[in-house]
Amino acid sequence: MMTLYGYWRSSASYRVRIALGLKGVDVRHVPVNLREGEQLLSEHSARNPQGYLPVLELEDGTRLTQSLAILDYLDSAYPTPSIMPKDAILRSRILAASLVIASDISPIQNLSVLKYIRSEHGQEDAGVKKWSAHWIAKGFESLEKMGDPKTEFFYTETPMFFECCLVPQIYNARRFGVDMDRFPKLLSVETACQALPAFKMALPENQRDAF
Amino acid sequence: MMTLYGYWRSSASYRVRIALGLKGVDVRHVPVNLREGEQLLSEHSARNPQGYLPVLELEDGTRLTQSLAILDYLDSAYPTPSIMPKDAILRSRILAASLVIASDISPIQNLSVLKYIRSEHGQEDAGVKKWSAHWIAKGFESLEKMGDPKTEFFYTETPMFFECCLVPQIYNARRFGVDMDRFPKLLSVETACQALPAFKMALPENQRDAF
Repeated sequence: MMTLYGYWRSSASYRVRIALGLKGVDVRHVPVNLREGEQLLSEHSARNPQGYLPVLELEDGTRLTQSLAILDYLDSAYPTPSIMPKDAILRSRILAASLVIASDISPIQNLSVLKYIRSEHGQEDAGVKKWSAHWIAKGFESLEKMGDPKTEFFYTETPMFFECCLVPQIYNARRFGVDMDRFPKLLSVETACQALPAFKMALPENQRDAF
Repeated sequence: MMTLYGYWRSSASYRVRIALGLKGVDVRHVPVNLREGEQLLSEHSARNPQGYLPVLELEDGTRLTQSLAILDYLDSAYPTPSIMPKDAILRSRILAASLVIASDISPIQNLSVLKYIRSEHGQEDAGVKKWSAHWIAKGFESLEKMGDPKTEFFYTETPMFFECCLVPQIYNARRFGVDMDRFPKLLSVETACQALPAFKMALPENQRDAF
């Protein structure tokens, strides 16, 4: 059985939990407590030189990092149901929307970045919240103009790579006080996702390390 | 013929130029001047709701955004030479290393982020340079512990997705004063890349909108 090193509130871990659920793949979950800094210990940096979560450890000990790269692996190793279409243009669109979240929103509110703006730029709670909400809203404004208006999910009739990224980012958006009513298309995709068992099982509050 | 909307110094545009060169695909290059804010004009947001570069416009008018999603499209549409291996684990590793750059370094020093820390956190040139250099060095430290020590390129004997990301990021690192001598493995991959015509043609200073 594979092992997923993650944290209940890490949105990158949450993406991988969703994909595992969609694929129906069971893994052993090992929590790495971000709040207590366990990701900075040598035990974790041996798993991932970046010291980030998640890490997927295969049965033979091979370790994979970066949530989107793990999703790509899962889609190759467990092709059904597919979370990336074969069509080159549709693939590219879904990947682009995923990267709006995974590149242009999420890393800018990574814990290490928030620590930096506290220590080096003198930002306190309000400044940190404003910063995070700003980048989430900016990315969501772009996403709201993307997608296919005729499909139940963002570009498709079944959840894909993008939905694995969107749902955790909306969870984070609410934590940072982003007004989600401004993003009806994203909310409608979220509603379609939350009806599915894979998304329910992956919810942060359903993880055993929660709270 | 396809059209690439880009900017000579945009590292995401530079990634796509390299991939096009590796694939031997000619495109029409249309510069969007980031320094003069042309990316913020409605003309450009009609091409990409994010207002970012690059945008690849196909012959039928379809527009693709996000450099890694464009690379993925190019690898599907022009499969030879491949820039992503078929092996699921190697693919995932190459994608993970690419994402260290494309998610965890590059977006944190995006022009819009640098503007924010100037206007909202009161950072001046020195603070902006320190910020950018910090995230580049942090990412490069992780990358230096990744890769395959036995191959000429990072994980392979021919340049892949990752090399399209690495070379532009090293170009940027030098602009921000990062001491590249700390990263011998990355430098050795860069040297192997710079010997190839695709990388030479893609150099920022070889673009007609340079300077």
